[in-house]
Amino acid sequence: MAEHVTESSPQTADRTLRVAWIGAGIMGASMAGHLLRAGHPVIIHTRTRAKAEPLIALGATWAASAAAATAASDVVCTNVAMPAEVEEVYFGASGVLGAARAGQVLIDFGTSRPSTARRIADAAEARGAKSLDAPVSGGDIGARNATLSIMVGGDADAFARVRPLFDLLGKTIVHQGAAGAGQRTKIVNQVLVAANTLGMCEAMHFATEAGLDPHAVLASVGGGAAASWSISVLAPRVLNGDFEPGFIVEHLVKDLQIAREEAAELGHELPLVDLCLARYERLIAAGFGRKGTQGVYLLYRDRLA
Amino acid sequence: MAEHVTESSPQTADRTLRVAWIGAGIMGASMAGHLLRAGHPVIIHTRTRAKAEPLIALGATWAASAAAATAASDVVCTNVAMPAEVEEVYFGASGVLGAARAGQVLIDFGTSRPSTARRIADAAEARGAKSLDAPVSGGDIGARNATLSIMVGGDADAFARVRPLFDLLGKTIVHQGAAGAGQRTKIVNQVLVAANTLGMCEAMHFATEAGLDPHAVLASVGGGAAASWSISVLAPRVLNGDFEPGFIVEHLVKDLQIAREEAAELGHELPLVDLCLARYERLIAAGFGRKGTQGVYLLYRDRLA
Repeated sequence: MAEHVTESSPQTADRTLRVAWIGAGIMGASMAGHLLRAGHPVIIHTRTRAKAEPLIALGATWAASAAAATAASDVVCTNVAMPAEVEEVYFGASGVLGAARAGQVLIDFGTSRPSTARRIADAAEARGAKSLDAPVSGGDIGARNATLSIMVGGDADAFARVRPLFDLLGKTIVHQGAAGAGQRTKIVNQVLVAANTLGMCEAMHFATEAGLDPHAVLASVGGGAAASWSISVLAPRVLNGDFEPGFIVEHLVKDLQIAREEAAELGHELPLVDLCLARYERLIAAGFGRKGTQGVYLLYRDRLA
Repeated sequence: MAEHVTESSPQTADRTLRVAWIGAGIMGASMAGHLLRAGHPVIIHTRTRAKAEPLIALGATWAASAAAATAASDVVCTNVAMPAEVEEVYFGASGVLGAARAGQVLIDFGTSRPSTARRIADAAEARGAKSLDAPVSGGDIGARNATLSIMVGGDADAFARVRPLFDLLGKTIVHQGAAGAGQRTKIVNQVLVAANTLGMCEAMHFATEAGLDPHAVLASVGGGAAASWSISVLAPRVLNGDFEPGFIVEHLVKDLQIAREEAAELGHELPLVDLCLARYERLIAAGFGRKGTQGVYLLYRDRLA
């Protein structure tokens, strides 16, 4: 297997890049599967080995730590959700950064603080490696169908080098700027997701209370100025009583907390984010933190707030 | 011109229905134009005659009152915005209902209280006519391109009879139930529009403050779970500094007030509607009530709240 990209045939070289994949949640499992099926050797590490088994069944190799996976790969992809996990995976004793080496590209597909992306970039540079923050949007469906939007921050050359991997995972892939710019773009995305999803649930609740047929209402409101991904993808789940994730409430709350921190640093207010955060925190308090984000409908249905 | 629909050739008959058109705002002018261009004789009345001139130039006939337009037509279409105007047009001394006769269909394309739609239906029935509440969504662009969503409440036979007219104006046409059901569906639509548009403005403000290239951000967030009509149609206007209507702030506030009234009657809370209403009322107080709904961005940009 070619470990180095040659200038004359970058595509052939890219096709045989060894990929470490760390974290296999709803999104990560689908994404790593696409790389495997495209012929990339994948070395997998997850905190709970059971989560890696479906990918091992597809041909992935198990690694006992993030460091071991990093040592055996050309490109390291991480997709873990919570800040403490990101710290452990990158900066922990058996983490990625202790094993990273010159020429490697480290890609964080998770949603983290922009400042975390900048710290990872500095630590990678110190070892001669490059890092990219590359959070994604498109939900479980986008991950499964490889139609994700991937928002990339970091070194432009490193982005060009791993672009063929991104092309296997998404259809909208935009380099947004220096380290952290991908994460800041993702915050913009999550503000929209939260507003659209809370609006969808409040509107569907109104439709039901008003005695309308909510399926007929969906047919009407999906076709005009009210159209959104939340309406077309999440509203049918609400009407079917399906509150499974998709994208879980706790992760959206984490993302909105990052939005609020960043806005506070920049000195401006986000009143709609504040409302969404209050509603979703209430949903966690009611015991629905591991449900999908469309679960905020339950606050209305069960009059929990 | 055939004044009565014959059962044997309803399509031919529909093609020659004489249409009264009352009100020519941003949306109405485009919609009436489609009917004219399709060959329907249009009798126009507007409070301010100047607004009717472009349609008269296209071949419409002027009528001095809503009653006169009604007397000269088979189908009466109204599209005026504010509750007081709707009262005047339907129930006023020279209004539609005083002139309506058996066999006519009255269509209100504006957004009104569901209770108003039921009162119009009762008054129409008393004269042997039928009425439909048929509010639309899709903005100036949807009206211009005849891609509106039309949400219809009222008598099913009357709906079937005028359906060919609706087909000239929209692409998503759904009968939602009895009189008022179209208006209630439109409320659902407006809750979504308000949430998506306020979210879009808050998110675009964050993007700008965070030093991102907002055009690149739009390319990313338009392609995933954050996608919406507000993002794809209104956000580019915001980035171009274009706050002209589209759909004006005062009308959205009126629609959200109806939503709050209805919810209060039904005994449930709409916290997101409350926030949107507060923000848009603040925008009116700042002098921007006649701007497009994307103008709520100005609250953020100019730190008005």
